[in-house]
Amino acid sequence: MTELPQGATIGILGGGQLGRMLSVAASRLGYRCHIYEPGAAPAGDVAHRVTTAPYEDETALRGFAASVDVITYEFENVPTSALDLLESLRPIRPNRRALAVSQDRIAEKSFLNDLGLQTAPWAQVDCEADLRAAADRLGLPAILKTTRLGYDGKGQARLNAEADIPAAWAAMNGAASVLEGFVPFEREVSVIAARGMDGSVACYDPGENVHRDGILRTTTVPARLTPAQRADAVLIAARILNALDYVGVMGVELFVTPRGLLVNEIAPRVHNSGHWTQAGCTVDQFEQHIRAVAGLPLGDGNRYADVVMENLIGDDVLRLPELLKARDTAVHLYGKGTPRPGRKMGHVNRVIRG
Amino acid sequence: MTELPQGATIGILGGGQLGRMLSVAASRLGYRCHIYEPGAAPAGDVAHRVTTAPYEDETALRGFAASVDVITYEFENVPTSALDLLESLRPIRPNRRALAVSQDRIAEKSFLNDLGLQTAPWAQVDCEADLRAAADRLGLPAILKTTRLGYDGKGQARLNAEADIPAAWAAMNGAASVLEGFVPFEREVSVIAARGMDGSVACYDPGENVHRDGILRTTTVPARLTPAQRADAVLIAARILNALDYVGVMGVELFVTPRGLLVNEIAPRVHNSGHWTQAGCTVDQFEQHIRAVAGLPLGDGNRYADVVMENLIGDDVLRLPELLKARDTAVHLYGKGTPRPGRKMGHVNRVIRG
Repeated sequence: MTELPQGATIGILGGGQLGRMLSVAASRLGYRCHIYEPGAAPAGDVAHRVTTAPYEDETALRGFAASVDVITYEFENVPTSALDLLESLRPIRPNRRALAVSQDRIAEKSFLNDLGLQTAPWAQVDCEADLRAAADRLGLPAILKTTRLGYDGKGQARLNAEADIPAAWAAMNGAASVLEGFVPFEREVSVIAARGMDGSVACYDPGENVHRDGILRTTTVPARLTPAQRADAVLIAARILNALDYVGVMGVELFVTPRGLLVNEIAPRVHNSGHWTQAGCTVDQFEQHIRAVAGLPLGDGNRYADVVMENLIGDDVLRLPELLKARDTAVHLYGKGTPRPGRKMGHVNRVIRG
Repeated sequence: MTELPQGATIGILGGGQLGRMLSVAASRLGYRCHIYEPGAAPAGDVAHRVTTAPYEDETALRGFAASVDVITYEFENVPTSALDLLESLRPIRPNRRALAVSQDRIAEKSFLNDLGLQTAPWAQVDCEADLRAAADRLGLPAILKTTRLGYDGKGQARLNAEADIPAAWAAMNGAASVLEGFVPFEREVSVIAARGMDGSVACYDPGENVHRDGILRTTTVPARLTPAQRADAVLIAARILNALDYVGVMGVELFVTPRGLLVNEIAPRVHNSGHWTQAGCTVDQFEQHIRAVAGLPLGDGNRYADVVMENLIGDDVLRLPELLKARDTAVHLYGKGTPRPGRKMGHVNRVIRG
């Protein structure tokens, strides 16, 4: 295991709030960050350097790679061509396989099922006839999702009855899709798991997530889980990380159902449902990720407090004056300017003391 | 009270580790930072912008001021001419009076004594004859310090006997100096205190400091103080802040003696002995300072854990592999490159759980 030396530079693909918090964590460990981002980059406010260029700009990609020692990413939809070029120049952590699996819902579900892990029932859908057959087989309601480029509820259509089929298929714009059957679940939890270059795995305590309009609203730790469920959740995450020879932090979303834990999806990066670790752990998910990709030992991720993380979405940020005064409440803003509906503007971590 | 709007830029004079951690804290509150630093600027790794120019460069100072909404500082020895120019262009917080008092040991001690606060006995020394008279009056051992520009044990000479007088005075290079009599103290503690633009004051729990070779080595909270001493420490700090109409965080160093608390010195900025607040409080000293200078309400600075902060000085940083693996230990590195004797390379906060 080669440790990244003090003063080395970590390249981050993507300059949103995750990149911003990764860059801050890297600074605590004595590293610099160079952000690569085609659009606006709030991460640039706290990074050593920012490259603003599209992922198709080969010269910019080469310059970026030449200036960094290792490359990581804050979102998984980086175009393959960019990754091919970058990978020929510098190590990318987490590795390409993790990206390939998580960029494609069908690859992801196949990978998980092949590992012996449960998912919601699903069927590949490439045309309206496929969708009819799939709806027949899985039953309705169900949810149709494009296999690629979906996040925060985008690229999704819910089917409540057979009559919804044409509109749902039309909403996919002809993109390869997957129909997911509904599973009656009691709650959604997620495990933020980390794996180091030495193969060691550390999982944070599972958090319980509440979504609205397809966007995460709150994560609460501890999640309401039985001891057996808690152990299962961690074992599932560890199995996924080991199978991918993963290096870094991953978010693993799980449905708690009467027939056990189902994997909803995996995200090969730091995850919104892991923001609570900033308030409840000595080493948060951002530092844990940087430690992993830098080849350092994983840190102490034990939870020492109960925490409720709440996202500030759109106008939620107007509650700021009150939140800044609240006890046991840590405010994290992303420097994104004007609030827009559905836009993640920040989050707060409220610590519940016993 | 005018709040700095989201996305505003805070100018920081000085680009060392304090500026670095201030910039990170500012990002959490949605602000950007612009660092002004004549030399190497580790703060620049996590700042929106850095100006590298001497404090005598009027054009650079004007450009800096034009790009920021408010100016603060991470060290108190900024030349007066630079401050005069900057103050004509943008608000400086904490204010000039706090700087003037803390830049000059005689002004500081006079200010404190005028407030009715105790200091070690002292005498102004402008020539060797002054020093002889002062040594006679205060007794030896005593310590001779230049009135300006001293920090971390620099610009100081200890006098154990009369024979040391010529060498001690020679070491001051003719600079205006002050002789401080020794006071038998049980321990040194410091209070990190904050005052907002609305005049509200919040003090962190006092920490107990251990120095070696004139440099802070550890701060431990809670400090060993009686309830009365604890109350006194906080009242002293509040009295100083109010008297200066102060806005921001200040470090107040106190000697615990049989005849009460003596003020050793004040620092009109975030303070090394307040680094423990990163591990033991919801809102740390860096965010508290940014909140104050930005006109936001002060945050929750209540201590929820026992903490030992240890500075990593020079080769201490070679213990890094072990520290990165230690439980309940948060590592903070400053990105300063090669260790040098006496150079602050980072610090660790070790949380003691009951």
